[in-house]
Amino acid sequence: MPVWLNGERFEAAAAVPFDLADRGLLLGDGVFDTALALGGRIAFRDAHLERLAAACDTLGFRLDRDLAGRTMDAAAADASTGSVRLTVTRGAGPRGLAPPDDPRPTLFAANAPGRPALAFRRARLWPTPIRRNETSPAANLKTLGYLDAVLALGEAKRRGFDEAFFLNTKGRVASVGTGNLFVLKDGALLTPPPAEGVLPGIARGAVLDLGRAIGLRVAETPLEPAALHAADAVFMTNSLRLVAPVEAVGERRLAGAGPELRRLAEALCERIAAECGRDAASCLRPADVDP
Amino acid sequence: MPVWLNGERFEAAAAVPFDLADRGLLLGDGVFDTALALGGRIAFRDAHLERLAAACDTLGFRLDRDLAGRTMDAAAADASTGSVRLTVTRGAGPRGLAPPDDPRPTLFAANAPGRPALAFRRARLWPTPIRRNETSPAANLKTLGYLDAVLALGEAKRRGFDEAFFLNTKGRVASVGTGNLFVLKDGALLTPPPAEGVLPGIARGAVLDLGRAIGLRVAETPLEPAALHAADAVFMTNSLRLVAPVEAVGERRLAGAGPELRRLAEALCERIAAECGRDAASCLRPADVDP
Repeated sequence: MPVWLNGERFEAAAAVPFDLADRGLLLGDGVFDTALALGGRIAFRDAHLERLAAACDTLGFRLDRDLAGRTMDAAAADASTGSVRLTVTRGAGPRGLAPPDDPRPTLFAANAPGRPALAFRRARLWPTPIRRNETSPAANLKTLGYLDAVLALGEAKRRGFDEAFFLNTKGRVASVGTGNLFVLKDGALLTPPPAEGVLPGIARGAVLDLGRAIGLRVAETPLEPAALHAADAVFMTNSLRLVAPVEAVGERRLAGAGPELRRLAEALCERIAAECGRDAASCLRPADVDP
Repeated sequence: MPVWLNGERFEAAAAVPFDLADRGLLLGDGVFDTALALGGRIAFRDAHLERLAAACDTLGFRLDRDLAGRTMDAAAADASTGSVRLTVTRGAGPRGLAPPDDPRPTLFAANAPGRPALAFRRARLWPTPIRRNETSPAANLKTLGYLDAVLALGEAKRRGFDEAFFLNTKGRVASVGTGNLFVLKDGALLTPPPAEGVLPGIARGAVLDLGRAIGLRVAETPLEPAALHAADAVFMTNSLRLVAPVEAVGERRLAGAGPELRRLAEALCERIAAECGRDAASCLRPADVDP
C-alpha cells in the first residue's frame, strides 16, 4: 500500500527514509486521526482537520493544515472507499524529553481500502480494569501512546468480546478503546464530557449535532456505570463504526437498539451522503441498528 | 550521530529506511531503555537487558537479547562516555489495533556522548496535576507513550523547576517523570512498589540492593505525600541522574541530603566502577550529594 510522507508519495510503507530521532517514534509525541473515505472523499473532512490542528496546538506545535488536507485527500482518492489514517508528530528532536524550540512536524498518511465492514455493527464490551486517566491532557487527544487501548482490546478479544469498556479513575463511564459511548434515556441523548477523560470524537460531535436536530434533549454529563443498565439504548461511536449498538458489558446484557438510534443512524447516513455523494454512501446500511 | 537499526549501523539518524507501518510509531507499541555508558561499557548492562526482555514479554513479543546486547555494546563503544538509548517495538502490523500473530520486532539504538552532567545533581520538583495511572500495565514499563512525562516536564521547566513529581490516581507518591523516588527516615530506605504505578528502574533496583548492603532497613511500600515532608532525606534515581537529592516539591523545601545518602552514592559509584572500570567511573563525583 502507498504512503504519503511530508507531501511525498511512496509506493510502499516498508522502507521509507525516516528520521529515527522523530519524537513520535521515541516518545509518542504526536497525534493521529482515522477517517472514513467514501467515493474518494473524506467524511467530516473539516472536522477531522479542525481537531487535528487543535490537538497539535495543545501539544505546542503547528499543523500545516493545507498539507494535512492535501495528504488526506490523496490517500482518500487512492482508496476510494475505506479508511485513511493521518499521523502528525512533533518531528525530530535532541536527546531527552525537552522538545526542540523550533519543531518541524512530521506528517504521514496511509489508507486501507475496503467496504466499511464495521459500520453500525453491534458490539459486546469487556470491562477492562485499566482506567482512562482523565487527569492527563492526553486523554482528550488521539495521541500515539495507544498501548492501553491495544492491551485492553487484546484482552477483550481473548475473552470473546468485540471491544473494551473503560471507566475513568473516578469510577465513572469514560469510553471504549476506540470510540465514545452514548446513552439514550427517556428522549435524552447523554455522553460524558471531555473532562471525564474522553476524546472529542468526530462521530461523537456529529451525533451530538444530529441528536439536537432530531429533537432529542442532548447533554454532555458524567455518567455512573448504572446509567448503562438503566438506558433505553447504549451505543458507541467512531469514524468507522459510526453508531454501533452495545449489546452487553461483560456478562450483563444492555437494552438493544431502539427507534431513536435508528433515526440517529439514518440522519448520520444522510449527512455522510451529502458530503461524499449518495452513490458512495449507499454502502452504509443503518438497518443494521434495528432492534 | 550514528544509529543502529536491526543490527545495521547508519552514519546518521536522519533518513534511515524505516517501515511507516511500525506499531512503535503508530501506537506507541514498544518500550525503551536509557543506560549510562562509561569507558565504552554499559553500567548495569545485564539488568537493563533483563528488564527490556521482561517488558517485551509483558507486551507479548520476544526480545532478541543477543542482538539487543550487541547493539547496546556498539552504541556504548562508539560513545565511550555518555548515554545509550535502546528502543524495541512490536514491529510492523496490519491496519488497526490488533497485533500481528507473528510479530517481527524492530530494535534500534542511538547514543549521546558527553560526561554524565546530571549525575547526583540536586533537583526541585513541580507537583504535576497529571496522575500516574497505576491501573495500566504501561505504568510499570518504559513504553514509547511518554507524553505525560514530556508535558509535565515542560510545565515544570516553565515554572523554574527541574522535574515533575507525580502522584498516582490514589493520591499517593508515585515517581518523577523520568525516575523513581526514595525516602530515608530513621534508618529506613523506602520507595513505592510497582503496584503504585512506578517503573522498576535499574538505578532503583541497584539502590535497593545497596541500601540492604550498607545496613538500611529497606522496604517497598506505599507512601503518602506527607512522608516526603517528614523524611530525613528524599532523592530520585535514574540511570543518568543516579541518586539525586530532592530539595523541594513545589514551594515546600524538603530535608537536604544526609550521611546515608552520601553512603548510598559512594556505594553506587563503587558498583559502577567495578563494572565499567575505575578510571572510566572517576567522572562520577558523589561529593555532589553532600548536605
